[in-house]
Amino acid sequence: MTPDGDRSAPAAPAATAASADRRPGAGPGGAHGPAGFHEMWRDLLPLGRSAASGGYRRYAWTAADADCRSWFRQQAESRGLAYECDRNGNQWAWLGDPLAGQAVVTGSHLDSVPDGGAYDGPLGVVSAFAALDELRARRATPRKPLAVVNFGDEEGARFGVACVGSRLTAGRLTPEQARELRDADGTTLADAMAQAGYDPAAIGPDPERLARVGAFVELHVEQGRALDLLGAPVGVASAIWPHGRWRFDFRGEANHAGTTRLDDRHDPMLTYAGTVLAAREQARLAGALATFGKVAVEPNGVNAIASLVRGWLDSRAADEDTLAELVAAVERAARERGTRDGVDVQVVRESFTPVVEFAHDLRDRLTALLAPSGTAPATALGTAPGATAAPDAVPVLPTGAGHDAGILSAAVPTAMLFVRNPTGVSHSPAEAAAEDDCVAGVTALADVLEGLACR
Amino acid sequence: MTPDGDRSAPAAPAATAASADRRPGAGPGGAHGPAGFHEMWRDLLPLGRSAASGGYRRYAWTAADADCRSWFRQQAESRGLAYECDRNGNQWAWLGDPLAGQAVVTGSHLDSVPDGGAYDGPLGVVSAFAALDELRARRATPRKPLAVVNFGDEEGARFGVACVGSRLTAGRLTPEQARELRDADGTTLADAMAQAGYDPAAIGPDPERLARVGAFVELHVEQGRALDLLGAPVGVASAIWPHGRWRFDFRGEANHAGTTRLDDRHDPMLTYAGTVLAAREQARLAGALATFGKVAVEPNGVNAIASLVRGWLDSRAADEDTLAELVAAVERAARERGTRDGVDVQVVRESFTPVVEFAHDLRDRLTALLAPSGTAPATALGTAPGATAAPDAVPVLPTGAGHDAGILSAAVPTAMLFVRNPTGVSHSPAEAAAEDDCVAGVTALADVLEGLACR
Repeated sequence: MTPDGDRSAPAAPAATAASADRRPGAGPGGAHGPAGFHEMWRDLLPLGRSAASGGYRRYAWTAADADCRSWFRQQAESRGLAYECDRNGNQWAWLGDPLAGQAVVTGSHLDSVPDGGAYDGPLGVVSAFAALDELRARRATPRKPLAVVNFGDEEGARFGVACVGSRLTAGRLTPEQARELRDADGTTLADAMAQAGYDPAAIGPDPERLARVGAFVELHVEQGRALDLLGAPVGVASAIWPHGRWRFDFRGEANHAGTTRLDDRHDPMLTYAGTVLAAREQARLAGALATFGKVAVEPNGVNAIASLVRGWLDSRAADEDTLAELVAAVERAARERGTRDGVDVQVVRESFTPVVEFAHDLRDRLTALLAPSGTAPATALGTAPGATAAPDAVPVLPTGAGHDAGILSAAVPTAMLFVRNPTGVSHSPAEAAAEDDCVAGVTALADVLEGLACR
Repeated sequence: MTPDGDRSAPAAPAATAASADRRPGAGPGGAHGPAGFHEMWRDLLPLGRSAASGGYRRYAWTAADADCRSWFRQQAESRGLAYECDRNGNQWAWLGDPLAGQAVVTGSHLDSVPDGGAYDGPLGVVSAFAALDELRARRATPRKPLAVVNFGDEEGARFGVACVGSRLTAGRLTPEQARELRDADGTTLADAMAQAGYDPAAIGPDPERLARVGAFVELHVEQGRALDLLGAPVGVASAIWPHGRWRFDFRGEANHAGTTRLDDRHDPMLTYAGTVLAAREQARLAGALATFGKVAVEPNGVNAIASLVRGWLDSRAADEDTLAELVAAVERAARERGTRDGVDVQVVRESFTPVVEFAHDLRDRLTALLAPSGTAPATALGTAPGATAAPDAVPVLPTGAGHDAGILSAAVPTAMLFVRNPTGVSHSPAEAAAEDDCVAGVTALADVLEGLACR
């Protein structure tokens, strides 16, 4: 497969429907490569898609998830790859002997956030299969086993914990903790797995499987605009910013909105509002990110002063000290405002993920493999007009988003490739990737796999 | 019944349970009067009470509502009063001929907001029966018919529209509109009525019934601290402030909280937060009330910048011009902040109730009847130590809360009595009324009924 040779493939009906999204280019709209790549999108695009929002609702252990899993298995089997599902529900498709060791593994996830876009996750899985197709077309001979993987429940949309499949495998989440996770309806993860036909008693760490992996490379649509601003279709990840979630409980006093004097109020909505604005300001000062995107109010009545406002702060920064200082500053601002409003403020850190530095030697191999001076085709990478990156280097960039690759990085050498997202929008149907950039991503991934497994 | 003579009655078990609420005095804790009054509270207190919150969940046409209705009917029949339920589900208990005209009617409602207190509504119904008992004890001879009324669905907790029973009766809500109201589960009011054994086809205006009413007096626990600040146990209503609800839709763009640069965001949570603080400031400047107590967020995910934040503004002021200017100022502030945040702001007025001036002549009769120079006992009213009201006058005060009395005031002469609420808290289990004040309320209501119906 070469970028030039495949752009002329016709668009499939399903792909055309997706491109009728909110904005041009919001879905994988056309022919991204050879017929196999094209057909993969055509079959995958309708699964778990909401007609109302145009977004995806592929939550772990639901019917939509099962459809995506069937799709994966079918892709594996149609290529003659050895299919297996591990104890934690992650799906693997092997080219070569899974037990030989030093395997080069690529893939991502197929589940989605609520009303997510088409690319976040699936682009990495589709590109993985397409890259194997490309290696065959190049008649490259793997000297190490290759595998495509679909990690289960990456987004955590249903049970609230992200990367459950990779966390379990890496021992970063205990089977007991995982089984007791509950969705909004109170269903445990254990029951959900069992209802989907999987054995929740079997889940747990899988060090033997990880020991067979020599390198894991995850391709992912970029979730910001860095590549777009650099004018580059593909980049290599340097690190995942440390990030965490903090729950702020603002407790005041429920009262009648029509009869309670302003001076007699203990209104936690005011404290919440002040904290939202303080978080934005502190993030700006720190050159970092802070977001209140989720809130729960009691009693949440139009004519009732709230008794409780619960807001969740998502914050990320380039290093852990900056993050800690930022969150401390937001908490200070919340308490000061709370004192003024007569509102009690409690802050609980619900999750924290330290900085992830991807393996430097693997990262350097990727950038070498993808540089024009390497063996990879130069035309697709880092040389777009107006690029601010050095013309002979693929951009290397950090990200604020968590990934299975981040979870696995503690156990195996791990790297990531990003594909340009011109809207910069993520976790939304407005997420986008241009056809040429998807092709460049597959080519880059094939170059990387060839470099790591065939030489 | 005299206040002194009845304080010694023992507390009932149910009343004791209620007084174990969040704070001392949060429930009708002891003997408020004679055995009848005491027993009424004892029987009513457990109905629809949440063990979890200690508050009441008495929503229209639910099992809890049916229990309260059975209680009302039992109270009527045990006193030999003629019971009837009108076409709109309002309950009436008549002493004298309902058709004689010029009836003096008193009462309130038995339903509640979510996790409401024990007094809001029930104090007016219990006091109404107790006041009739008191008239009998005084051997007063009514020259006009007297009635106790329980208006259905006053709080609108289930179907979102307040005062449905009185609105239908007064023609302020059409039967078609009412029947189509839906609760959170999608059940229509018509279906809910039918399931409760009532005929939704029969609802509608009831001018004949209203024509029989010469005066309506509603006793209600105060929903603020005005009487407490004045040191008076009982007051008379002057007016209900104009009030309304405005829905603010803040539309931005959903995006990944971990990867989207601050400058690329269109975060409606920021605009909402700025608007909440602006509303408070504008209310302070206007000497009025403005509250955001209800909010809905999409997609409401911890790691997602919101696409939509919907906030409801409840605002009230002493006059309609002040209210209009206040809301316009909040809307201006929202739009200015929205421009800065790249967020679209839409404002919809969902409801508006003009100012209600209670009938001046009836109000003046009440204040005369309750003044120490009148025929009423002076000791209980307006003469507490430290009262800032003139020692010979009962306080006359406006309120920001809507009531059935406000709805009926357009059709019949209407007045209201308020009983002191030492916490000033309303629509919460922390709502309170002292035993002596409840007794003073019954005494005052009996004085008013005697003055209006027996002389």
